[in-house]
Amino acid sequence: MFSNSDFKLGILGGGQLGKMLLYDTRRLDITTHILDAAADAPARLACNRFMQGSLLDYETVVAFGQDCDVVTIEIENVSTEALKTLQQQGKKVYPQPEVLEIIQDKTVQKQFYAAHQIATAPFWVLENKTELLHHIAERRIQLPFVWKAPRFGYDGKGVQIVREASAIDALPDGKMLIEQCAPIEKELAVTVARRADGEAVAFPVVEMLFENAANLVDLVGCPADVSVFTEVKATELALNIAERLNIVGLLAVELFLTTSGEVWVNEVAPRPHNSAHLFSDAGYTSQFEQHLRCILDLPFGNTALHTPAVMLNLVGEADFSGKVVYENLSEAMAINGVVPHIYGKAETRPFRKMGHVNILAESLDAAYAKAKTVQELVKVKA
Amino acid sequence: MFSNSDFKLGILGGGQLGKMLLYDTRRLDITTHILDAAADAPARLACNRFMQGSLLDYETVVAFGQDCDVVTIEIENVSTEALKTLQQQGKKVYPQPEVLEIIQDKTVQKQFYAAHQIATAPFWVLENKTELLHHIAERRIQLPFVWKAPRFGYDGKGVQIVREASAIDALPDGKMLIEQCAPIEKELAVTVARRADGEAVAFPVVEMLFENAANLVDLVGCPADVSVFTEVKATELALNIAERLNIVGLLAVELFLTTSGEVWVNEVAPRPHNSAHLFSDAGYTSQFEQHLRCILDLPFGNTALHTPAVMLNLVGEADFSGKVVYENLSEAMAINGVVPHIYGKAETRPFRKMGHVNILAESLDAAYAKAKTVQELVKVKA
Repeated sequence: MFSNSDFKLGILGGGQLGKMLLYDTRRLDITTHILDAAADAPARLACNRFMQGSLLDYETVVAFGQDCDVVTIEIENVSTEALKTLQQQGKKVYPQPEVLEIIQDKTVQKQFYAAHQIATAPFWVLENKTELLHHIAERRIQLPFVWKAPRFGYDGKGVQIVREASAIDALPDGKMLIEQCAPIEKELAVTVARRADGEAVAFPVVEMLFENAANLVDLVGCPADVSVFTEVKATELALNIAERLNIVGLLAVELFLTTSGEVWVNEVAPRPHNSAHLFSDAGYTSQFEQHLRCILDLPFGNTALHTPAVMLNLVGEADFSGKVVYENLSEAMAINGVVPHIYGKAETRPFRKMGHVNILAESLDAAYAKAKTVQELVKVKA
Repeated sequence: MFSNSDFKLGILGGGQLGKMLLYDTRRLDITTHILDAAADAPARLACNRFMQGSLLDYETVVAFGQDCDVVTIEIENVSTEALKTLQQQGKKVYPQPEVLEIIQDKTVQKQFYAAHQIATAPFWVLENKTELLHHIAERRIQLPFVWKAPRFGYDGKGVQIVREASAIDALPDGKMLIEQCAPIEKELAVTVARRADGEAVAFPVVEMLFENAANLVDLVGCPADVSVFTEVKATELALNIAERLNIVGLLAVELFLTTSGEVWVNEVAPRPHNSAHLFSDAGYTSQFEQHLRCILDLPFGNTALHTPAVMLNLVGEADFSGKVVYENLSEAMAINGVVPHIYGKAETRPFRKMGHVNILAESLDAAYAKAKTVQELVKVKA
């Protein structure tokens, strides 16, 4: 058993996702060790041991894992070679390094979907810009399209929608993933939790609204305003991807509902994800607890939503950098159902994710209306 | 504002209540300092600074409070003299030391009720056993009655129901509170949250079931199975006591519903309390978050319950002492709606509070039924 024993859980990454994972490890009294490059990482508190070091450095990650029984991640850009070594030493590593390798590189991830006949936007894996220009000249690739860097993209970085030929000059050269723009009706997401025995459950489908300048999700709502048919199709697609990957742990699946009613996978994350934060306050089981249940071989918690909710990301205002100030947060807390989550990052930067707010209400529409008010009220400045 | 600023909250006590308070200070990014006598106190992690020392020592508490802006408690047996000094230095101390002094001593607490015409069981404040025997001989006090030590009673310690004259011999001598046994139909509790401006809200009424050998609450259920009339009367009584005390922070009010339908106060606690744990998972706002909102001058959170629930205390089995083991905890987690809270105490002792489980269901009866199963399943042993 995990509580009050010699059991130790190692977590690679000490950002906000690691910090939130620790609420549940504390509640279940699970001993945790955390590795992160930043001395002031949000998850530095509440773990039993914090180690500073690079998640991409083989020696550091192997050394970190030595006295852990299970090793997990809160960010996918880690040394998978080190995780393989730990696995060979008999540690349980969830999600598995081979799964991370498929997901870490977006070209490999896309090729995985193609190989398994999983619906996704048409794509090209190209070696450089010369090749891209060649494809455009021969009209195999048409504007607009989506350019993605193979690795290290996150929060809108490493992704660009190219609408005009003139924008190609500014793209970095080197290997790239080009995707045809999907005819998007709605963007959806499904988080799947999967255990080592293959048992899997899905959280309810959420809808994502992108509004701000930085291509970051602004709002996530649940239950998604889609037909039961779409809900089932999205859930089945997400469960299918999790099974094909054979992942143990959480898999967040971002989806497109196309204008013709098809459901395509956009991309996946093998860990707790922004799109499932609302379950922490509006659902019976948080994604963090569910992740722990997966990787510690515990039975699943109830994935149901108990109250309609919207999650609003709190990102740094465009014109501010420096010591963070949350304007009007206490005013927002006067609105019934507003639950702030502040990540504890000392400095804000333009569009940096600094926190989120879950907003519960009697209906999704009422939650969106409150979210608009909170969005106009709360500003992350310096 | 409290988040990411130089603001510091000092908490006297680092037991399980302090530990649970830290889930919300972490979520809101509030800097916390904790003082506790035990180096391995459950709340030693997740605070920004942990200081080991006696809560009853004037110098220690004053020194601890020096760099805090607000000082609060998670246990009422602290040096109120030290808190008064901190108050004079300009710190905000919530709950206020004068309120703690009324509540710390059960004889003073009872006299407070009498002075304010607040319904409570008839009582006698006696100096010693000679006086008690004298009252019994003259039939002013009749068996059975309740004996209480004036101070430092908790979790059933310092309280005895005296049913036979022969049991008097075993009572400690010295000042005592004697209460007439209330004709109890049900035991109820209401937690009130009150701000410095006098605004107050009450959580829904809970019912408490005592079953085990140590006079510890076994089960707490909500919504309480009582009439609306009783619900209103209990809530009004609790709000009235909070107002008379002028408390800022949480006040947990334990009540008797008598066989004739009256509501009497039993005793109160000026802090988060076992009877309100179920709101952490079955309500929109935990008692801990509500306490923070009170003492940090934030607006109140919604006190409503979203799902019927029962809380089951996990106490050490009678025959076990030593390094704790939680038998069948993962089996219990297979039951839909079961949420364990493990306090992180290394050693179990007979009847020691080691954790609790919140059990959510579609009805109170269904939650009680599940709670019985969990109670039979989970055993705290060594």
